[in-house]
Amino acid sequence: MIIMKKDATEEEIKHVVTEVEKHGLKADVSRGEFRTVIGLVGDESKISFTHLAVLSGVKEARMVEIPYKLISREYSELFEGRDESRIVQIGDVRIGGESPIFIAGPCAVESKQQLFRIAEEVKAAGGNVLRGGIFKPRSSVHSFQGLGSLGNDEAIEALEWLREAGRRFDMPVMTEVRGEMQADLIAEYVDILQIGARNMYDQDLLGKVAQKGKPILFKRHFGAGIEEFLSFSEYIVAEGNKDVILCERGIVPVGKGKSYTRYTLDLAAVPVIQKESYLPILVDPSHAAGRRDLIFDMSCAAIAAGASGLAIEVHYNPSEAKVDAQQMITPQELKQIIDTCMEISKTVQIHRKKVKV
Amino acid sequence: MIIMKKDATEEEIKHVVTEVEKHGLKADVSRGEFRTVIGLVGDESKISFTHLAVLSGVKEARMVEIPYKLISREYSELFEGRDESRIVQIGDVRIGGESPIFIAGPCAVESKQQLFRIAEEVKAAGGNVLRGGIFKPRSSVHSFQGLGSLGNDEAIEALEWLREAGRRFDMPVMTEVRGEMQADLIAEYVDILQIGARNMYDQDLLGKVAQKGKPILFKRHFGAGIEEFLSFSEYIVAEGNKDVILCERGIVPVGKGKSYTRYTLDLAAVPVIQKESYLPILVDPSHAAGRRDLIFDMSCAAIAAGASGLAIEVHYNPSEAKVDAQQMITPQELKQIIDTCMEISKTVQIHRKKVKV
Amino acid sequence: MIIMKKDATEEEIKHVVTEVEKHGLKADVSRGEFRTVIGLVGDESKISFTHLAVLSGVKEARMVEIPYKLISREYSELFEGRDESRIVQIGDVRIGGESPIFIAGPCAVESKQQLFRIAEEVKAAGGNVLRGGIFKPRSSVHSFQGLGSLGNDEAIEALEWLREAGRRFDMPVMTEVRGEMQADLIAEYVDILQIGARNMYDQDLLGKVAQKGKPILFKRHFGAGIEEFLSFSEYIVAEGNKDVILCERGIVPVGKGKSYTRYTLDLAAVPVIQKESYLPILVDPSHAAGRRDLIFDMSCAAIAAGASGLAIEVHYNPSEAKVDAQQMITPQELKQIIDTCMEISKTVQIHRKKVKV
Amino acid sequence: MIIMKKDATEEEIKHVVTEVEKHGLKADVSRGEFRTVIGLVGDESKISFTHLAVLSGVKEARMVEIPYKLISREYSELFEGRDESRIVQIGDVRIGGESPIFIAGPCAVESKQQLFRIAEEVKAAGGNVLRGGIFKPRSSVHSFQGLGSLGNDEAIEALEWLREAGRRFDMPVMTEVRGEMQADLIAEYVDILQIGARNMYDQDLLGKVAQKGKPILFKRHFGAGIEEFLSFSEYIVAEGNKDVILCERGIVPVGKGKSYTRYTLDLAAVPVIQKESYLPILVDPSHAAGRRDLIFDMSCAAIAAGASGLAIEVHYNPSEAKVDAQQMITPQELKQIIDTCMEISKTVQIHRKKVKV
Repeated sequence: MIIMKKDATEEEIKHVVTEVEKHGLKADVSRGEFRTVIGLVGDESKISFTHLAVLSGVKEARMVEIPYKLISREYSELFEGRDESRIVQIGDVRIGGESPIFIAGPCAVESKQQLFRIAEEVKAAGGNVLRGGIFKPRSSVHSFQGLGSLGNDEAIEALEWLREAGRRFDMPVMTEVRGEMQADLIAEYVDILQIGARNMYDQDLLGKVAQKGKPILFKRHFGAGIEEFLSFSEYIVAEGNKDVILCERGIVPVGKGKSYTRYTLDLAAVPVIQKESYLPILVDPSHAAGRRDLIFDMSCAAIAAGASGLAIEVHYNPSEAKVDAQQMITPQELKQIIDTCMEISKTVQIHRKKVKV
Repeated sequence: MIIMKKDATEEEIKHVVTEVEKHGLKADVSRGEFRTVIGLVGDESKISFTHLAVLSGVKEARMVEIPYKLISREYSELFEGRDESRIVQIGDVRIGGESPIFIAGPCAVESKQQLFRIAEEVKAAGGNVLRGGIFKPRSSVHSFQGLGSLGNDEAIEALEWLREAGRRFDMPVMTEVRGEMQADLIAEYVDILQIGARNMYDQDLLGKVAQKGKPILFKRHFGAGIEEFLSFSEYIVAEGNKDVILCERGIVPVGKGKSYTRYTLDLAAVPVIQKESYLPILVDPSHAAGRRDLIFDMSCAAIAAGASGLAIEVHYNPSEAKVDAQQMITPQELKQIIDTCMEISKTVQIHRKKVKV
Repeated sequence: MIIMKKDATEEEIKHVVTEVEKHGLKADVSRGEFRTVIGLVGDESKISFTHLAVLSGVKEARMVEIPYKLISREYSELFEGRDESRIVQIGDVRIGGESPIFIAGPCAVESKQQLFRIAEEVKAAGGNVLRGGIFKPRSSVHSFQGLGSLGNDEAIEALEWLREAGRRFDMPVMTEVRGEMQADLIAEYVDILQIGARNMYDQDLLGKVAQKGKPILFKRHFGAGIEEFLSFSEYIVAEGNKDVILCERGIVPVGKGKSYTRYTLDLAAVPVIQKESYLPILVDPSHAAGRRDLIFDMSCAAIAAGASGLAIEVHYNPSEAKVDAQQMITPQELKQIIDTCMEISKTVQIHRKKVKV
Repeated sequence: MIIMKKDATEEEIKHVVTEVEKHGLKADVSRGEFRTVIGLVGDESKISFTHLAVLSGVKEARMVEIPYKLISREYSELFEGRDESRIVQIGDVRIGGESPIFIAGPCAVESKQQLFRIAEEVKAAGGNVLRGGIFKPRSSVHSFQGLGSLGNDEAIEALEWLREAGRRFDMPVMTEVRGEMQADLIAEYVDILQIGARNMYDQDLLGKVAQKGKPILFKRHFGAGIEEFLSFSEYIVAEGNKDVILCERGIVPVGKGKSYTRYTLDLAAVPVIQKESYLPILVDPSHAAGRRDLIFDMSCAAIAAGASGLAIEVHYNPSEAKVDAQQMITPQELKQIIDTCMEISKTVQIHRKKVKV
């Protein structure tokens, strides 16, 4: 990490970047209101910090040992001169701001009629972003893999429905990119690219998707500690894309005997991550619970824990859904959740400011 | 499980009980408003249900296969004729009712002065029950084990302080029973007997404590699935003591790398347990988080998830505490938590009723 | 699953396949010594089994509910008429046969000199397959990612070294395919394609690599249950590639406090998987332990548990290795391990046959 | 930890002990061949090490920060002058020596006939110690809890059978002490007192059982990390009882989906614990697997990993057993296991010495 002097010139900055790149590393230049900081991306052992420290315009050059630094609060403070959370803005939707946002829609896009009806009802319930799976990652090769897996024509048709539904009901749209080959196509149609939990560790996919320059919803793998989750989100930011929205969706259950939920929702991850990183963090209660009768309670809990929003699966007729039918809620339930969460969020924000820890 | 006819006489009930006991089992007689149900405690394979079914006054006799039945909603519905949650009442304090309750106090009782000052401040902050550890279960034999471990005189003195502090500030008091030998002594002094997470599996302790006839706060072991937790709470109820208050306090963390919390708080356990059992469920955010800067957030989340209350460790000067200093909060923070949680609880209860799942 | 009559003609088989494909599914035709069985790959709910059952030459047609079937012992028994484990043969190396095999080499290929020296010493120690990472999946974007990540020229050069080393020292060679984009290139140079633990859930990568038609070493993700591991290996076999070598390499550690190993090696997975599937299963003690002083003991344990071989990281000077230095062993230690394991394997096989369970 | 000078007198040692006890701590005096070392048991912050260091005969006095020290190799090396593993000797049986030992018997003692028949067959198969449960810890209050739970008379009768069977077939006998109340009674009858996994955290029970002065088999809790396991074994040694035999029996399974085993056997714990502590470590494959068809494989693996022996549940007619029927093996299978393990142990020991790590 190289901290430039407050009055460092553009030329001096450029020179440092050139030096860094000469050694096979990339330079992440963050021009804050306070000062410019250059983060090194790559194997720092290949470069001499003593050498960097004496370059013109450099105030300080030091190695950072933690596996995530470009996404850390410390880094943000360095160039902003203050602790500031990132707000990911897509049209009118601000993710990470005061008001929680709600991403909702069907698990899988099944037909134009299905998608449009759900989109309309999500909007009416107060939803902010429309989601719909087109390439579905499934545990079994013998399950429905989403319309996208049927062929290129089907993928394009489904993506067009999604884009159109977003425009018609005035919501940004989001879908999952499951493999590198799909990134270019999907990025043409949607506003937020989702990287699912199962692909969290897929650094090639992360790099590829990051390069599309669009906001990315990045889900924690169910086998990942928080440190790993943050370290892998660094792969996205290292491509120069800081519009990363983190999402907790449950970790592997521990213990003998019957599982009452599919995964264990780790809500402490919300405040922990907020203390470590400036990136916004959402919660997906649907995949964590795996059963609809827990979605209301866990949604309220997530917002009370401070989450910047929720990602929820919705269907007008849950039992009809081709994927994850047992965890879908109706648009009517979604409305109750959104109304309750908006109230909880206000209550919590008023009081949180009074707590000095 | 033996369901008696609505007009079964006392004599008929008695006869069934005698029959059950003849085979080495115990009978749990629940006289509800609706009808009388006799639960069998022990190895049901030793008795013939065909034989029981033809006894006079018996409507139905059948084996129940799940490992917990006396604490299940199904059982309660049978004799109450409706689904009813249990309220554990200690003086004016109602645990499991509409309003959440707050158990607070020092991790370990250290001196009379310390305890009384904390008690006063807990009361002022809105706390309902005073807690204070006297026999402390510790990971290392080389750590402070609580005043109770220093000797009988010290134990009695500390217990007297606790009882007196409860009376002075008008709160029921609670302390942990760590071993069977301590049960008789402690039961003389306190209103609620706590069985700590580490002793959840200790069935001999459970039986012994249950027999004291006082309300029991029963914590989930960090290695226990929900099914095991409920199965072991059945050991208490099987002694005829239904005043059991369950408590979630975090499960073992999973995953490689740095742990940001001591345990993983499993908040989905709250609504899951409420659907399985009629017993009230609280949450202890202090031991789960192990760090004070997460207590506010996790407390709000627990209440939003529907918990009937919280158990929180409080100290006027956290850094002075001999045990678990890093997770203590101040009485001022406790007040903020209680105020926020009361509001959240109201919000959630209004909306929850509208959700039909 | 469609079981053909013993005397079913090629034409009848073809007709069934056409019928299956009409419904958007793929047909896995297994011509065993006993009879021909056609496995359905894809969403079976889209096809009528009643209809299939009456086609000419069909003995029986039924739906299979478990998430893995093409890799199951039951399936193999159907067409082979007997329970037979699969032997993956690469030149003279037989993986899954009586004798355990040893895959060894450096974690990362660093230079031609390094690779050739290690290859020579691995061969001398008794190793059967040479491994060397070229595209390394790393937790931190700031770590060395392997020569392959430096650019196309470096990747090709490293792959050429690997192929040449294999030829010089007469061992098949293996390297990891980390992303879909690398599959075509790598498949030109190596004999076994490795899919690393972190990519286990990446179904697009699995499909892509499977299509290269070469043997695949498929590692279990550290967050995956055995059922998931087997379900995802079905994604490979569903592409018609049955040369899959499974590999256990440790699951996420559970529990509070210091971790003495990086992962928890789940050796019971070895006999469990052998009972469920006909595919061979190896063990990688290096990544599980993460420390070299446990490799000997865990290697012996893995072979004693019945593993068909080991994958071990070796370096002539462990402390020099750029990646995972702390878990490398020397070729001298490798020799001790191979010698001991060969003896254990013989001992165990003699006695195992006598055990009737 | 206080290290005495080589020529320290008995009087000087005594004086140091008195000083230690004055501050409310206990002193663990280890008189080795090399020198005498005094370990402090209890809260070391209450004592001044500067003061201790200047006492007559003291070479060095320093605080030890790790939670286990009395059981650590470092401690043993201090007074023995060399690294020496502890051998727990009961009659002719040496646990922790060169040859692995085998503890076997029924899960629960059911009758004299059952016990004697199994004892005879265990002996014939090569077993060294007879085990048999009398007080059984069970998940469900509705299951058979062992003869000991039926009443005092039944407990004594069963204990007498056990003692008699041991004498008849010349094996030391072992049974589990589940609660503090049972310790005095059981200690009169058996040679090894077992503390089960579920009671690992029950420090009051540990202290009570330790005081009986007999060898203790101490099982790791399924939710405990290795550090916790060792820290709690320190509670036993702190009572002056160093005859502790550690036992790994599986940790809670992680991951979604079907469990193929009851627990995950953590075999790396064997060499890890051997590096940390001088106490012997055994493995119980029966409770870990929970199914008899894995016992042979996991037994071989445990011995290959270096375990000092096994604890296995045996019944002449497994399906008849009242408890854990599905994990019992027959005496014939036990014989195969013992024979194979003896061979593996020899093979491994010869080679292990050649490995320099």
